[in-house]
Amino acid sequence: MSNFPRSIFCLLLCIPSLLFAQSMEWNEIHPGIWKGIAGKPDSYDLLKAAGAIPSPALEKLENAPFPLNKADIDARVINGKTYLRFPLEKKEQLFGFGLNFQHIHQRGQILQLHADHYGKSDNGRTHAPVPFYVSSLGYGIFVNAARYIDVYAGSGVRKDSKNPPEVQDRNTDENWSARPYSDAVEMLVPAEGVEIYVFAGPKPVNVIERFNLLSGGGCLPPRWGLGFTQRVNRLYTSEQVRQEAKAFEQKGFPLDFIGLEPGWQSKSYPCTFEWDKTRFPDPSGFIREMDSLKIKINLWTNPYVSPDASIYKKIEPYTGTHTVWNGTVPDLSMPEASKILFDLFEKEHVKIGVSGYKIDEVDGYDSYLWPDVATFPSGHTSEQLRQTYGLLVQKYSYDMFRRNGSRTYGLVRASNAGGASFPYVIYNDNYSHEDFITALINSGYAGVLWTPEVRASKTAEEWLRRFQTVCFSPMAMINAWSSSMQPWTFPEVEPQIRAVAELRMQMMPYWYSEFAKYHYNGTPPFRGMSLEEGFGSGLKKEKTVRNLEENPYEEAVANEVKDQYMAGEFLLVAPLFTGQTFRKVILPKGKWYDFYTGKLAGEAEVITISPGLDRIPVFVKDGGIIPMMPAMLHAPGSGQKVDLEIRHYGVKNGSYKLYDDDSESFDYEKGLFSWREIKVERQKNGLLKGRISKAEIGKPNTVGTVTWRYMTK
Amino acid sequence: MSNFPRSIFCLLLCIPSLLFAQSMEWNEIHPGIWKGIAGKPDSYDLLKAAGAIPSPALEKLENAPFPLNKADIDARVINGKTYLRFPLEKKEQLFGFGLNFQHIHQRGQILQLHADHYGKSDNGRTHAPVPFYVSSLGYGIFVNAARYIDVYAGSGVRKDSKNPPEVQDRNTDENWSARPYSDAVEMLVPAEGVEIYVFAGPKPVNVIERFNLLSGGGCLPPRWGLGFTQRVNRLYTSEQVRQEAKAFEQKGFPLDFIGLEPGWQSKSYPCTFEWDKTRFPDPSGFIREMDSLKIKINLWTNPYVSPDASIYKKIEPYTGTHTVWNGTVPDLSMPEASKILFDLFEKEHVKIGVSGYKIDEVDGYDSYLWPDVATFPSGHTSEQLRQTYGLLVQKYSYDMFRRNGSRTYGLVRASNAGGASFPYVIYNDNYSHEDFITALINSGYAGVLWTPEVRASKTAEEWLRRFQTVCFSPMAMINAWSSSMQPWTFPEVEPQIRAVAELRMQMMPYWYSEFAKYHYNGTPPFRGMSLEEGFGSGLKKEKTVRNLEENPYEEAVANEVKDQYMAGEFLLVAPLFTGQTFRKVILPKGKWYDFYTGKLAGEAEVITISPGLDRIPVFVKDGGIIPMMPAMLHAPGSGQKVDLEIRHYGVKNGSYKLYDDDSESFDYEKGLFSWREIKVERQKNGLLKGRISKAEIGKPNTVGTVTWRYMTK
Repeated sequence: MSNFPRSIFCLLLCIPSLLFAQSMEWNEIHPGIWKGIAGKPDSYDLLKAAGAIPSPALEKLENAPFPLNKADIDARVINGKTYLRFPLEKKEQLFGFGLNFQHIHQRGQILQLHADHYGKSDNGRTHAPVPFYVSSLGYGIFVNAARYIDVYAGSGVRKDSKNPPEVQDRNTDENWSARPYSDAVEMLVPAEGVEIYVFAGPKPVNVIERFNLLSGGGCLPPRWGLGFTQRVNRLYTSEQVRQEAKAFEQKGFPLDFIGLEPGWQSKSYPCTFEWDKTRFPDPSGFIREMDSLKIKINLWTNPYVSPDASIYKKIEPYTGTHTVWNGTVPDLSMPEASKILFDLFEKEHVKIGVSGYKIDEVDGYDSYLWPDVATFPSGHTSEQLRQTYGLLVQKYSYDMFRRNGSRTYGLVRASNAGGASFPYVIYNDNYSHEDFITALINSGYAGVLWTPEVRASKTAEEWLRRFQTVCFSPMAMINAWSSSMQPWTFPEVEPQIRAVAELRMQMMPYWYSEFAKYHYNGTPPFRGMSLEEGFGSGLKKEKTVRNLEENPYEEAVANEVKDQYMAGEFLLVAPLFTGQTFRKVILPKGKWYDFYTGKLAGEAEVITISPGLDRIPVFVKDGGIIPMMPAMLHAPGSGQKVDLEIRHYGVKNGSYKLYDDDSESFDYEKGLFSWREIKVERQKNGLLKGRISKAEIGKPNTVGTVTWRYMTK
Repeated sequence: MSNFPRSIFCLLLCIPSLLFAQSMEWNEIHPGIWKGIAGKPDSYDLLKAAGAIPSPALEKLENAPFPLNKADIDARVINGKTYLRFPLEKKEQLFGFGLNFQHIHQRGQILQLHADHYGKSDNGRTHAPVPFYVSSLGYGIFVNAARYIDVYAGSGVRKDSKNPPEVQDRNTDENWSARPYSDAVEMLVPAEGVEIYVFAGPKPVNVIERFNLLSGGGCLPPRWGLGFTQRVNRLYTSEQVRQEAKAFEQKGFPLDFIGLEPGWQSKSYPCTFEWDKTRFPDPSGFIREMDSLKIKINLWTNPYVSPDASIYKKIEPYTGTHTVWNGTVPDLSMPEASKILFDLFEKEHVKIGVSGYKIDEVDGYDSYLWPDVATFPSGHTSEQLRQTYGLLVQKYSYDMFRRNGSRTYGLVRASNAGGASFPYVIYNDNYSHEDFITALINSGYAGVLWTPEVRASKTAEEWLRRFQTVCFSPMAMINAWSSSMQPWTFPEVEPQIRAVAELRMQMMPYWYSEFAKYHYNGTPPFRGMSLEEGFGSGLKKEKTVRNLEENPYEEAVANEVKDQYMAGEFLLVAPLFTGQTFRKVILPKGKWYDFYTGKLAGEAEVITISPGLDRIPVFVKDGGIIPMMPAMLHAPGSGQKVDLEIRHYGVKNGSYKLYDDDSESFDYEKGLFSWREIKVERQKNGLLKGRISKAEIGKPNTVGTVTWRYMTK
């Protein structure tokens, strides 16, 4: 030590703490995706936690120019933290930053991204605090750090801003603003460096597709996952579950999987992960019997290990310092911990036929979860595990199902960037129908799925309105663990409930194909209107008239639209909330048709509708093609042939790609899937005519008889 | 470099990042105050920012044993963060952690201490996020870091806990708790080390006294500061202010200082700090005239510098990278910046007689203040400046008044540990009367002052109820910058408003003496019931009966009491909120008497009172002595003799220390003050008789004729 000059030593120590990296190197890692490195990134990050393997589809994308001025991106490491800045133009709106519940437009928001239960304000604490945003100008930014990132999405104003706001005097200037104009997105990452990804478009939806493909593409659920699911009372016995399944059958309501709540475990909170033999004396026989009724079984759990669990001692060395509800917390970033936990799950559940999980309480909130003073044997911090725990439980449980050759589709309370390919849907304890729809829209910007679950309702109207939206979402679920409610609980709306549940089943070919596009192309199946061409970016440019009477369309798209969304390629869903008897719907450019009647609804305009209780308003784009099947009580099984009714809407020619595979195994990963081309074209005689390409030889083919229905007369 | 082995170099780099300091060294720096150092603390901290000079009174305190088991305190530095743990016993309640608005009991709370506007939940974001807590067992802990500290105040549960919670099964155990028992307070400080202070009691109030004396003792306002104050409409001219002052005089309402809102400045938001010559053509003459009316002038400002300010260019090199409302942000941790700013204040305001400031918007919230990506020329981080900015504006403005020989008393939006000696009262934009009273109680645990200001009211009842509490608070203020309301705005309650305003003035000798005790002894003048002997600690030990009928007293003190508080040595204040016609009051052990009538109110019991609108319920401890003066419209000036009516309540003998000095200058710091001993004792004839010690020769003496009033017959 004495031979080494103190000052040089000090200098060496100080260098990493103050690094200016004003012009970053950008490396195009896939067409239209660039990676830049600021400082010295953590060795553990979101993509690593997710074990994300980029989709091969990325390489088929078109090249695109770097979408920003590189000199406008600034990254510096100061005293162990990374300071990031990205430019913002005047007429630019931002979307994303995770699963937000109140806002779609993120410009102006200040967030600290932090995995947590949503606490009724959009402050960054959410189930999926994804550090990714997409601009209305058609580019995106992703900061790959498993850290609590402070985000100033166009709120901070710098002295050296190139586009400074106008200085005014609050005393006398009427136009004085408490929120002066900001020309940058800034972030503070509490790490000595970070990986940054920039995504090209050209359209905003292409940005999201690239982001999702970077994680391997969206998940492809088994077909049954898109059917109907009921979660039963937490203390039901196997006999009561059997009765529930039979009641659905007798009532003629569709049902594909039942969720068992904590009572299936011998002890829970903390959990043993083992069956309670008083309530479930023969789990294996029970699941076989349910399987014969075409009902899959999904198990609630959280990952916190009871002292009474058989794995308690074995997993102990791989758990954190603090407990959650007296359960030890497996350090799932260590292979040893995840192997012990999921080997038990495999033996106890998957090997006897359990189809999936609802993995609860991996999000927060603080008073339940481990505190940030907890430490873990991997050396990863509490913060790093908090940001990735949802990814880890999804990854290792999904790996387990993959080993066993069966697809799964389940529920999880937390996710993050890198998790798009995991077949899990996020849910929470909040129960605002409006917030649920906002979350459904935001899920499409965040690479996650969300269900606006139905839990209980005070009135038949609310029950129906919620049920209608859940049937136009990634998972059609009643979560009755506490309420024990059933679809027919309100007899006065039973026919409407049945109708929409049957519609969900009839639309299975559409839903399944749209999820395949999520998987293969990265296109979110449920997404916000800003991603729809011709809707406007949220900041309409051509005119400045702000009078609603003069120009209602412009006003509508300039404002945040949180109550209508796109479902798949062609459908615009405009749900009603309890108490509403009418609502406005903004129809993008081009003609739009009523889904139920095929009649023209409007074109690039704001319409007001009063659909009554019976139906959830759904509109179809001109030329839209919706493949449907007969209403069934259960999703078609592997290889089961199904007749199709292919609907066409509007006056334009249309085309559609119908996806097919065995719907349950992973054979699609070996190429055992097919896309069939559907085309509807106007003939010389003026009539429309549809055709569907033949099934490829050697590929799955579940299409039976095809009938054509031209909805618009 | 090549001669220095790489591995040793790496080892040296890694050593500071993982330090185990399980047995800390504790150094008794004052009687009953120990300082311990974990890791390598920041060079900039709360006490340094405040420039706190410990009170000489500390050295006169009794010695006390270290109040905790040293081995139970754990501090470790891991990867640049400090992990702290302090023990908790089963029957222990915690108070403090800053100016909280909803909770008094802090056990179980999870907070991230962060200077900010209170956002309607107690999550650590508050105007005074003081990292200090006091235990019901009679000790306290202070973590001297200008950082966002995560606090788990008895919520985290460790695997290695000595007192682990009982493991239960939520499925079947009715007593299952979502919040298992925790035996520790844990904190995460994002710094490589920290100074920790431990305070002995023996009583909880002694802990707070030691904490306040460490900062130099509480502030001693000028006598006029305890009179009545009105803040006028933001755009009033000097003529309108003059009219306002005259209206008070004519109506016969007390008034000691008027606050001018932003319009006094030529431009504000951002600020010039210079007079607007259209609204105030002759500031100096205006202030002289107001002074002749015995009215002081207080100026609103925030510290963000307008490009039009005369100091703009000069201060620019000492400002941060980001602006606030287009104003540059002086780095007040640099002497250069504070000198430029406060030299201007001194020249423009103090030299012409301005008496004080309302320093606004130094707290938050995020969308207004500089973002945490801002950097500052001192090298202090945004986080460090955010946590200390309130301290800095108080310190440097107070220094300026001290230089000029005049005491001040003003308002500030943010403070922190170390700021007890600054003569500033915190206020905010929230307006829940209940929250305001909770904050008043919590201010006493945090070393700060708080005013439950009156701003506007929908009804006469609300106006009166708010007015009553503000008269029993550190600053009796109407903040009418927006509402332009006046005490007589609701004629139907004008007599009651006048009565309580006069009472405020009559009680001046009591208030002034109680503030002197805050200054010289550290005793908070307004404080929670838990600090009152015989009230119970919040967790009563002797009995376990929980039936309200059988033992209402025990039940009441076990619960959190947020609607009554102590004002000075002898008074218990139990305000009513709008809509209440009766309320319960918990009287501690010993007899308590009605302040207005002297009649016995009760003894160690819960009473129900329905006082009507006229009065705010106030109770006096047995033997209580309250020195009062005639109702005046203005506080007595320097040297002004005032007659005293000394009241005695109850049956016990009593004693009181009456403070006296010139009430406006800093001569008390040179010893020019006196304490006079008041005693009321029962004579042999059974009658009570009072006496007051003579004034010391050469010391201030403002006591005129003394009359005695024995309130309890």
